[in-house]
Amino acid sequence: MAVYTDVNEAQLSRFLQDYDVGSVLSYKGIAEGSENSNFLLHAERGSFILTLYEKRVDQSDLPFFLCLMQHLARRGVICPLPVQRRDGELIGELAGRPAAIITFLEGMWMRHPTVAQCGEVGRSLAQLHLAGADFPMHRANALAVEGWRLLWNGSRDRADEVSPGLAAEVEAEFTDIETRWPNDLPRGIIHADLFPDNVFFLGDRLSGLIDFYFACDDFYAYDVATCLNAWCFETDFSFNPAKAAALLTGYEAVRPLSDREKAALPLLARGSALRFMLTRLYDWLTIPDGASVQKRDPLEYVAKLRFHRDVTSPSTYGLS
Amino acid sequence: MAVYTDVNEAQLSRFLQDYDVGSVLSYKGIAEGSENSNFLLHAERGSFILTLYEKRVDQSDLPFFLCLMQHLARRGVICPLPVQRRDGELIGELAGRPAAIITFLEGMWMRHPTVAQCGEVGRSLAQLHLAGADFPMHRANALAVEGWRLLWNGSRDRADEVSPGLAAEVEAEFTDIETRWPNDLPRGIIHADLFPDNVFFLGDRLSGLIDFYFACDDFYAYDVATCLNAWCFETDFSFNPAKAAALLTGYEAVRPLSDREKAALPLLARGSALRFMLTRLYDWLTIPDGASVQKRDPLEYVAKLRFHRDVTSPSTYGLS
Repeated sequence: MAVYTDVNEAQLSRFLQDYDVGSVLSYKGIAEGSENSNFLLHAERGSFILTLYEKRVDQSDLPFFLCLMQHLARRGVICPLPVQRRDGELIGELAGRPAAIITFLEGMWMRHPTVAQCGEVGRSLAQLHLAGADFPMHRANALAVEGWRLLWNGSRDRADEVSPGLAAEVEAEFTDIETRWPNDLPRGIIHADLFPDNVFFLGDRLSGLIDFYFACDDFYAYDVATCLNAWCFETDFSFNPAKAAALLTGYEAVRPLSDREKAALPLLARGSALRFMLTRLYDWLTIPDGASVQKRDPLEYVAKLRFHRDVTSPSTYGLS
Repeated sequence: MAVYTDVNEAQLSRFLQDYDVGSVLSYKGIAEGSENSNFLLHAERGSFILTLYEKRVDQSDLPFFLCLMQHLARRGVICPLPVQRRDGELIGELAGRPAAIITFLEGMWMRHPTVAQCGEVGRSLAQLHLAGADFPMHRANALAVEGWRLLWNGSRDRADEVSPGLAAEVEAEFTDIETRWPNDLPRGIIHADLFPDNVFFLGDRLSGLIDFYFACDDFYAYDVATCLNAWCFETDFSFNPAKAAALLTGYEAVRPLSDREKAALPLLARGSALRFMLTRLYDWLTIPDGASVQKRDPLEYVAKLRFHRDVTSPSTYGLS
């Protein structure tokens, strides 16, 4: 649920005078995204998403996110295109916050993705990686291994409240993952948060990738590992090898993985599971019950972490 | 903020097979309305609001609300038109809840309405009253004088926490209002909740009346009194006579008020202020801080109540 800042019609009309989208017809706060205030805007020249960037987003990162969407859209990635103001800028100000308009993409996110849809996600992820290769801006991954430590420091003392023994298990994971984490895999722009709610479909056709607000520079294979976790487990936390094989086959049809990337997948998937477990754990322990931000179960990612820990060969994921 | 029930694409597609709106293109949970789950639905044949009726709405009332919208829309009131299923029904079932689709109305609600817009509201309210006169269904006002008592019983003991002396002041109001409440003014279908967030404008043109989920049978002049409270006070709680005069002139251009209705306005406005103060007070005392339901200040309506208590003649509202 996400509308932290209300906007009145006079503010919005003034804001839109800098854009070439025509008059406002309507705008509705939408209950998606957890960091910013988002509105579905109907204007004379089409439908758009209006985003007001709230405090949790570092404003100095906004040009990176918006220029990246523009770059990717121009190279054929199906993602929202930021609308330029008449002066060429992508970012304006609305209700005292930085704000932007991006094109609205039709499509629905899949609560229960199919094998075919996992294949489409793999293919699109690889296209995104290739299309981003010549993007000139850079952004370090704030939630890379070092960032995980900071999150963990804020949760460790209470981790056993969520599951007895969790603190010791995670400590052991940290030691192992930090020691063995690769440093020389192919890298570039990654999405870093390509969960089902950020991918739209119309039937089995992928119609949009959204929410680039975690995008950064990191290993391509780490992005693949995050997708394995996000798309290839069932609601009972069991691994679905058919979905993983489809996702990886789709990816490799566009950008083949090197042998070193394949060999690193189990470790990267463990790391990615740890990263999402840590943000969920932190939210679980710090967000009050009944708040408007949805809390997700950290134990789902503990289960995925354990699964990958036992994987001895990338063939488990359907790779040859 | 209001999405209590998530819907997946398969459920929605199945639900829409009973309607003639074409395939789903997208649906977004919207952060408006506080009783039900609402989605803005883009389908091949247009934009719609999809509503899932949650527990707080009495299901036996749904035919009244939906048939009323259909009745009013057919008589030229600019309100959403419920979309009929192929079998003629207005209500289906989705995710285990009764659900309906109504047409989407473009327009924005005014956080700071103008005098001209208050005139438009008055005119539209009178049109609604006339158009509803031959509606064959009936619904008692659950939040009429007797209903206020029930709310008050749940809050009285803690009222002074909100403002010292409030309990005694409200008790005195009850005694006075209950004794003097009229029983023979012209009555029929009223909206009963025509606040600014339920009225859309495109510029100064009124483009939609929405949210008929409090509609019921009661005095027309009580609906007018509720609008005086909702539209004709400023954010500092001061009364704006120009807005009141515009609202009443607009109303009377379509449906003139009788002398008895005019004379009753100060008392009806006090009663309406008491009714909204009581629901706000109840929410204020019972909803936990940080919950997703917005809590509104009950003292705003205490101030309005006091204003009307001192009104000795309807001329204060700009009536001759």
